[in-house]
Amino acid sequence: MRKVIVGIDIGGTKVAGGLVTPHGRLVKSSIVPTHAEQGFKGSYSQIVNLIESLIQDAGGKEKIIGIGMCAPGPINPKLGSVINPPNLPGWRNVQLERKIHRHFRLPAKVENDANAAGLAEALFGAAAGYRDVFYVTVSTGIGTGIIINRRIYHGKNGVAGEGGHISIDYRSPYRCGCGTLGCIEALAAGPGMARRARVKLEQEHTLPTLLRQMSSGHLSRITSKMIQEAALAHDPFAQSIIDETGFFLGVWLAGMITLLDPEAIVIGGGVSQIGRPLFKKIRETIPQYTINRRFAVKTPILPAKLQKNVGIYGAAALFQLAGEEAEKD
Amino acid sequence: MRKVIVGIDIGGTKVAGGLVTPHGRLVKSSIVPTHAEQGFKGSYSQIVNLIESLIQDAGGKEKIIGIGMCAPGPINPKLGSVINPPNLPGWRNVQLERKIHRHFRLPAKVENDANAAGLAEALFGAAAGYRDVFYVTVSTGIGTGIIINRRIYHGKNGVAGEGGHISIDYRSPYRCGCGTLGCIEALAAGPGMARRARVKLEQEHTLPTLLRQMSSGHLSRITSKMIQEAALAHDPFAQSIIDETGFFLGVWLAGMITLLDPEAIVIGGGVSQIGRPLFKKIRETIPQYTINRRFAVKTPILPAKLQKNVGIYGAAALFQLAGEEAEKD
Repeated sequence: MRKVIVGIDIGGTKVAGGLVTPHGRLVKSSIVPTHAEQGFKGSYSQIVNLIESLIQDAGGKEKIIGIGMCAPGPINPKLGSVINPPNLPGWRNVQLERKIHRHFRLPAKVENDANAAGLAEALFGAAAGYRDVFYVTVSTGIGTGIIINRRIYHGKNGVAGEGGHISIDYRSPYRCGCGTLGCIEALAAGPGMARRARVKLEQEHTLPTLLRQMSSGHLSRITSKMIQEAALAHDPFAQSIIDETGFFLGVWLAGMITLLDPEAIVIGGGVSQIGRPLFKKIRETIPQYTINRRFAVKTPILPAKLQKNVGIYGAAALFQLAGEEAEKD
Repeated sequence: MRKVIVGIDIGGTKVAGGLVTPHGRLVKSSIVPTHAEQGFKGSYSQIVNLIESLIQDAGGKEKIIGIGMCAPGPINPKLGSVINPPNLPGWRNVQLERKIHRHFRLPAKVENDANAAGLAEALFGAAAGYRDVFYVTVSTGIGTGIIINRRIYHGKNGVAGEGGHISIDYRSPYRCGCGTLGCIEALAAGPGMARRARVKLEQEHTLPTLLRQMSSGHLSRITSKMIQEAALAHDPFAQSIIDETGFFLGVWLAGMITLLDPEAIVIGGGVSQIGRPLFKKIRETIPQYTINRRFAVKTPILPAKLQKNVGIYGAAALFQLAGEEAEKD
């Protein structure tokens, strides 16, 4: 009987789920709305229904090893509980692992989404074959996951790997939502990019850029996506913002290499899709900000591979090692 | 037969050695000059002679589990080799582990001194009882060691844990010897403290401080020790330099907590002996620069305990787990 894992990616607007083999092949996937506005009861029943329909799809022909789930933090992976996700109103210290386990009588696990995505990239994505990986997702925030010996590193309280909130500029004018000045998320995530662009354009009224037209003169409407488009249209100002983003990410990743000396770094998330110009600047900057220059230049800086289904893969990856062992039976 | 470990701490001016039990008791210690000026042959024979005399001291009444050694980096702990320590002229890619093993026909290990010290503090020092520890030594440089599950974390190339060279200020006027702008070593190690004091006093000629007299007007003679003494004599300027040092260390350690979520942080080295005023500022700053505030305030920030023999303990600690297992026999 073929073994599969149920992977569930719980987001604020949609819940994505799928059946994934222990080798990381997605054999079935499905999406439902979260109904977050209906509070815990509404969103929880959407999750249960999705799992139910996936188990039906497996239809007794496939043995289900477990149900992996991921959600935006804060999560306590040690207790298997979801603490108080800002995008899931009504969820407070939900013992999700235990509830799902009891409901379906199958092993269940829950994990922070960046950690899960990092594990998936390390097991069957861009860093397949590497054991020690530093994973980064740059989108509306910056999430990170530390994978050591093919496992997620959790730290004492299960909150390790929040690398996006390390400050690289303690006197920065930019304060992150987390309260820290100059943390990399405040500087280099999508909203941070947009904010830097806006502040510069407000300061220099005559600076020419396509972004003024694209935002119809409302600088507060500038998005990282707009910056990316303007850069593609050879707008020098937009290009300089991307360059600066790459520089910030490079300084920060240099620190991660100095500290963790990983085998590979994987960068995913919407902002990473800027691609070449961003990665080029990151790779150029890293050797300037690390003592381990000799090794840093050889550390692969890889674009993420799993893209839009990374959450499903990540959730399933929580059972991948268990799956591998089951395969041997 | 009682089991002991030979621990050897190789420095640029002296080599310290001792016999340590698997429980971390130093039962015998000895110091010899390194004779670094005599090149590899001279200093290596000092090390061999010291080991020989310690083995004679054990005198067949004690079973020697192994010979642990530590030295300032760069070290390749995976190959057991000393690469090119600036304070040991003539040493280039010395396969120290293999050479000592062949000479004495006993298991040998070599490790970077900060990693070894961190392991010692985690096994039988300030953080005894903790499994995941971030160790810092602040003296003429800043060395760090990451202890995970009572073992040194080495990373891919064996160069992980160089946390002292993470930048917390990418636009800092201070460049570290490693090439990085604003790394914590450049800002907060002893020479960095002295440099900050000097630069400020050069800029503000009328600023009153005991340091002018203590350095006989030669500001370049200011040392971190002098700053410490002036602060003890209630010199406000010296106190402000210590405060700033604590702030920098706090910003940086906040990042380490954000990333690694350790059980405890241990701070040793000469500068840490400033004690209370420094630790107070560090503890105040950490919660301001981490997303994991709730846990960060509970993370113990401990002064190191093993002090001047930490190198011997650290070298011996490399065999401590082996020793524990032997004890069970």
